[in-house]
Amino acid sequence: MYVNGRLGNHAQALALAAKTFSIPAHIVMPSISTPSKIAGTKSLGANVVFSGSTSVEREAVVSDIMKEHPGIHLIPPYDHPHIILGQGTAALEFEKQLQERGTKLDAIITPLGGGGLLGGTATAMYGTGTRVFGSEPRFEGANDGERGLKGGKRVERVSTLTIADGLRTPVGVLNWSIISDPNKLKGIYSVTEEQIKRAMKLVIERMKIVVEPSACVPLAVVLYNEDFRRMVEQEAGEAGWDVGVIFSGGNTTVEAIAKLFATPDETKAERAEGKLGLDGSRVAENVPG
Amino acid sequence: MYVNGRLGNHAQALALAAKTFSIPAHIVMPSISTPSKIAGTKSLGANVVFSGSTSVEREAVVSDIMKEHPGIHLIPPYDHPHIILGQGTAALEFEKQLQERGTKLDAIITPLGGGGLLGGTATAMYGTGTRVFGSEPRFEGANDGERGLKGGKRVERVSTLTIADGLRTPVGVLNWSIISDPNKLKGIYSVTEEQIKRAMKLVIERMKIVVEPSACVPLAVVLYNEDFRRMVEQEAGEAGWDVGVIFSGGNTTVEAIAKLFATPDETKAERAEGKLGLDGSRVAENVPG
Repeated sequence: MYVNGRLGNHAQALALAAKTFSIPAHIVMPSISTPSKIAGTKSLGANVVFSGSTSVEREAVVSDIMKEHPGIHLIPPYDHPHIILGQGTAALEFEKQLQERGTKLDAIITPLGGGGLLGGTATAMYGTGTRVFGSEPRFEGANDGERGLKGGKRVERVSTLTIADGLRTPVGVLNWSIISDPNKLKGIYSVTEEQIKRAMKLVIERMKIVVEPSACVPLAVVLYNEDFRRMVEQEAGEAGWDVGVIFSGGNTTVEAIAKLFATPDETKAERAEGKLGLDGSRVAENVPG
Repeated sequence: MYVNGRLGNHAQALALAAKTFSIPAHIVMPSISTPSKIAGTKSLGANVVFSGSTSVEREAVVSDIMKEHPGIHLIPPYDHPHIILGQGTAALEFEKQLQERGTKLDAIITPLGGGGLLGGTATAMYGTGTRVFGSEPRFEGANDGERGLKGGKRVERVSTLTIADGLRTPVGVLNWSIISDPNKLKGIYSVTEEQIKRAMKLVIERMKIVVEPSACVPLAVVLYNEDFRRMVEQEAGEAGWDVGVIFSGGNTTVEAIAKLFATPDETKAERAEGKLGLDGSRVAENVPG
């Protein structure tokens, strides 16, 4: 059997890198992390150390580990030049694939949480003529990047339970220095929880790719944010733009998908499964799909 | 935006072929079909005509259409040489991809409903040394192929509400003539509903590919059917086999996934989403995943 897995988040990427090069890794994760992320990280052989969910609690645990293991390197999830540059390679690969087809992106849009991916993308695309945009959930002020750009100042704290759980964090310091530069970033747009769910449903059902809510935020902006669409119309007219959409990542579970899309109406769900006829009758004889 | 979609079933494949070659297509679908299949077929420009769910009702509608449009061709979903040969090309592509890597399949396993895919695979692999297996759901006698091989006679009727809704149909006549030939097919194995769900959860969460329950039946056999596993052990010993698993298809909806995997325990689902700490406390400040 050949399995092509995409692992996703920082913890799992680090665990995989450490395993590949036989380097011991201690990975601090909040105990509230999605169980599939914890399981994925442990299965890659890393020593997972749990912390509370606040940054103070996390940093205390990190500090203890660093005292215990002199010479150990700290690799933060986004606020570090190497992480930013590494995450920018996705845009470089994207550009290269399009060059091979003899075309070029007018714009590229990524999710924005801490700003590793967006900062890296903006750095990679700087000077190429490809416009770079960020995208955020709007729920409970999760659009700290968008609000920061408006206020001209980085928003330092965010407290939100948006379904886009990878984007609940505020933008990092170094990340902010990149994305607040109008020569590098053209804008940040935000979407509602319902718009994220609509984009997620579309990707799962039509592209057949499993994505977490955070990954669907850029597509939701492109499809449903009226300000974004109006801006493209004004700038590009009828021709429009070729927009590159970066999806990241796929850390979800069937139970989490079920929670997001469960309908209280039993009948609807049975119909979706093909167990009920449109007239509500049960299936008598069955036919191939 | 670049979207790579896999459409899946017969109705949508026909609609796409008809659209590609500008041929008018009338597609008869039971009104109880999954809404996403109906929507997908219509969006490809085909004229969708609804029928009842029994074969008698379907054939009556088909017969009316054929009278209305003299010269029209009937393309049945599985019991036809062209359909069988067409579906066998998946195995040929699989074989070719492995040849390019300098390796070869010891065995290949596909889902079995009407027998288009399995009949085609068995025909394509005949004489190559690659063993061919079929796989079925067992629920409410859906394993008509397995039962037919045991009884030495095709089972003509099946009435089951297995979650593998693409495999609820009995094996076709021409299809049976192929898969009942021990020189072409090595065996058919079946799995429980729970085993199908376990395989589906694994594919969605680790391979990040959206699959319908029917698509997961072969993998469920390979992973969970003790008779299959014992047989491989006896034949191959420690070395085992390289088994090619064909997944087909991805016609599902987020609502259908929700129905399959919803947990009655609200707490569990919230935890899976990361909204609750392992200790049951709500998330206070949020950190990146």
